[in-house]
Amino acid sequence: MNSDHPSRTSLDRRTTLQLLGGAGALLLAPTWARATAGPDLAAIRKQVVAQHDANVKRLQDWIRVPGIAAENHNMGPACAFTEQLLRDAGFQHVERVETHGQPGIFATLDAGAKHTLGLYFMYDVKQVNPSEWSSPPFDAALVDKAGFGKVVVGRGAVNQKGPEATFLAALHAIRGAGQKLPVNLVLVAEGEEEIASPHFADVVHRPDVLAALRRCEGIFMPFASQDPDGAVEINLGAKGVIELELVASGEHSGRGPSKDVHSSLKAAVDSPAWRLVQALNTLVTADGNDPAIDGWFDDVVPLSAHEKELIAAQIARSREETMLKSLGVKHWVRDMSFSEAMDRLAGQPTANIEGLVSGYTGQGGKTILPGRAVAKMDFRLVPNQTAAGAQQKLRAHLAKRGFGDIEVNVTGGYDPTTTDEHSRLIKVSQAIYHRHGIEPGLNPRLGGSWPGYIFTGEPLKLPAGHFGLGHGSGAHAPNEYYVIESSNPKVAGLDDAVMSHVEYLYELAAGF
Amino acid sequence: MNSDHPSRTSLDRRTTLQLLGGAGALLLAPTWARATAGPDLAAIRKQVVAQHDANVKRLQDWIRVPGIAAENHNMGPACAFTEQLLRDAGFQHVERVETHGQPGIFATLDAGAKHTLGLYFMYDVKQVNPSEWSSPPFDAALVDKAGFGKVVVGRGAVNQKGPEATFLAALHAIRGAGQKLPVNLVLVAEGEEEIASPHFADVVHRPDVLAALRRCEGIFMPFASQDPDGAVEINLGAKGVIELELVASGEHSGRGPSKDVHSSLKAAVDSPAWRLVQALNTLVTADGNDPAIDGWFDDVVPLSAHEKELIAAQIARSREETMLKSLGVKHWVRDMSFSEAMDRLAGQPTANIEGLVSGYTGQGGKTILPGRAVAKMDFRLVPNQTAAGAQQKLRAHLAKRGFGDIEVNVTGGYDPTTTDEHSRLIKVSQAIYHRHGIEPGLNPRLGGSWPGYIFTGEPLKLPAGHFGLGHGSGAHAPNEYYVIESSNPKVAGLDDAVMSHVEYLYELAAGF
Repeated sequence: MNSDHPSRTSLDRRTTLQLLGGAGALLLAPTWARATAGPDLAAIRKQVVAQHDANVKRLQDWIRVPGIAAENHNMGPACAFTEQLLRDAGFQHVERVETHGQPGIFATLDAGAKHTLGLYFMYDVKQVNPSEWSSPPFDAALVDKAGFGKVVVGRGAVNQKGPEATFLAALHAIRGAGQKLPVNLVLVAEGEEEIASPHFADVVHRPDVLAALRRCEGIFMPFASQDPDGAVEINLGAKGVIELELVASGEHSGRGPSKDVHSSLKAAVDSPAWRLVQALNTLVTADGNDPAIDGWFDDVVPLSAHEKELIAAQIARSREETMLKSLGVKHWVRDMSFSEAMDRLAGQPTANIEGLVSGYTGQGGKTILPGRAVAKMDFRLVPNQTAAGAQQKLRAHLAKRGFGDIEVNVTGGYDPTTTDEHSRLIKVSQAIYHRHGIEPGLNPRLGGSWPGYIFTGEPLKLPAGHFGLGHGSGAHAPNEYYVIESSNPKVAGLDDAVMSHVEYLYELAAGF
Repeated sequence: MNSDHPSRTSLDRRTTLQLLGGAGALLLAPTWARATAGPDLAAIRKQVVAQHDANVKRLQDWIRVPGIAAENHNMGPACAFTEQLLRDAGFQHVERVETHGQPGIFATLDAGAKHTLGLYFMYDVKQVNPSEWSSPPFDAALVDKAGFGKVVVGRGAVNQKGPEATFLAALHAIRGAGQKLPVNLVLVAEGEEEIASPHFADVVHRPDVLAALRRCEGIFMPFASQDPDGAVEINLGAKGVIELELVASGEHSGRGPSKDVHSSLKAAVDSPAWRLVQALNTLVTADGNDPAIDGWFDDVVPLSAHEKELIAAQIARSREETMLKSLGVKHWVRDMSFSEAMDRLAGQPTANIEGLVSGYTGQGGKTILPGRAVAKMDFRLVPNQTAAGAQQKLRAHLAKRGFGDIEVNVTGGYDPTTTDEHSRLIKVSQAIYHRHGIEPGLNPRLGGSWPGYIFTGEPLKLPAGHFGLGHGSGAHAPNEYYVIESSNPKVAGLDDAVMSHVEYLYELAAGF
């Protein structure tokens, strides 16, 4: 991944050699050659190397100011720290945007360029269970990780502070080399991505923010795209989601006790826990694997033939056994094939139980009849389902079956998102990956979610995606990490990841 | 409740006055008069009063050595402390009986009497959640409680250390007065009552223990029988119970993940949480209020006409509004009448969810698909259901529906128990309550459970019951208490409760 001699001649040579090695790579060398008045990448890279320690420290400091939206923990300082990072990186206008939840951030960097590029950041992180971590989750320690090299371990290391700090480092390097950013930047950030972004639309649709975003050619999210082997999968879209709690309680429904009572009373009083179980049972098919909510599939668009081809190409490059093993799973649902399962991962709406909580949850038993029962759930959505429509259908479905007493407390969610395979954002990503010897896979739709629809849907209808070399893992899990110095030549360390963002900015700009 | 002048003449006078006042009281004055060589109750009472502080301290010290079976916490010291209390009270033979779970105790007191009485003790207590207590649960503080007087607050205060310490105080008083116990005693104790007594049968059926129990006329459990108004309800029986966990997991079943994975994977993998919900749903009727397990009602004997009369008599003395309010309930199941609901409390088998635990149970949500889901449950049983039969039917029911992958982990349980209304144990209880101005209700069967079947069933077939003046409340709840000095003349404080046990022993003996 080291490009220590980034003169165009050597780049072309390396690119050609790599193109000969890769299959079906896009020949962008001619495009690059056209940009003869381009940046001095060598000088910028020199800055990247010189600023390495400062870049690492910036990321570590950021991790050490955690902001956990689900627990409303430390969000103010987390937002403020992020705002300062943006100012330090050169954004002239950085503004906290208050919402009914956690604040967002609106920032602009005017580089006097012809074109403008949008950026999406999140500054919140997932909850942690510290006892599960071998290195404390907010220490941001730099440790040796066998097979990877030196990594930063911490909550947010890869999701998303590592990649975001990597992008900011690109801005620092360009400025440090005395060069101009080739595009203006408009950045919107939220502090609620981990809780399904309930107020992000409020930030983005503020009239001046919307106007600024309308000026953008597209929007991207810095991302650590490489897997441990250096491979990259480009997601052309993502499922939508709604996250909610279904709550049954005697207090709310008037049936059953309003507090925990002795379990012998089951003979005479209703049980909110049973009520919840029975309501839940109406939501899925007999094998529990598909939603059975009235009208749920009305607007669902099945995968196209092309999308299935893309998935098939992905599968051809993957190893089913590896995936099964990493999940600790022996069979896909209904014992279907890998191909069918991956089609479902991209194309099928889901109804999932994240957690169940009722009554006594400690060791052994306790003879109580609980007054309350909760199911924490998420539902993934595909085009053309909408988060608003899904909520409405769920409530109607429950009401129709006499479960109107079940509270449906939606905490967040958003529509699915899709970006055109042929958009410049995607094409340039592919080109840069190819240049670095990577044959990126094209995934029509991620099984998970991000609020890209805010950009790809009405009224903006901009292409949106992810980009970035680099690797990390453990999002939402213990021991989340991000690679700083890579011991694997196929995987970019921090410096190379920073340079990939530098290349991305200049290459995008060249083609607008 | 003070009988400061217990000469027979004044007792007769008081009894007569009370009999004129109470309805349908049993005339036992003649029986009492026959026992002319009876005990010197005045002298015994003097000891009770003199030993008051020591009696209170004994109880406080006992509460301060908690033993929580569900958490396997401190059980060794709890058992040892109890053994010593028995030795101190005069049991010459006190033996710890090891089991595959918590140890039991077998103790005998040979008073050289003609007849022998059995006793059932439990030395374990329920779990606590200290943050819910206004006085720490194991401090055993003596506090003023408005409307009641001075009470000891602590886990086990009323359930069961208070009443058991009260009985032991009776033995101390009798001995302190230089008098003989009128009966020999055989005592069996367990440390697992709060976890449904999984090993108690092993203690009781040890050949020498069984032989000792066979010599008993009956067995009773000291109990704080009075409600806040001083009223008493005598239970002629109790439902049986089984307590268990139903567990669905990818690890055990081979379907779904063996650990928590990202929730987007619901499209491709089975969910143990949904599996559990669907299995649970097969166990009850459409409104969740009755078991729907195959064969569950095959051996159920409906309430007899007489049992329903007894319940109706209870209801006539009760206030439905009071009960509803104390439970925080607005309606009985199916909006039935108080009468129907109380019939069900005595006569209907139940299937209850004590707790649900799966995946993420903290604040907000977390986008995981959990690898495991647990339902903690208890099922109350009526004659002629058996704990063994119930387990077998539950497993068969689940297996028949394809849910054989659900683990059924039974932690404890036992059969229903019934004692003849006309047994001496019950008759003498009624007489003593009447003598103290109480008209005890007769409840054919408690909706809750105690392992009385161990005594009333094969092979012992002995009458078994509860007895004791005194009041406390909060079993299994925060701020459990037991009245020491009663500010309500209708409710016995410690000294009067101790005397009630003295009277019980002598009166039982007189009639054997």
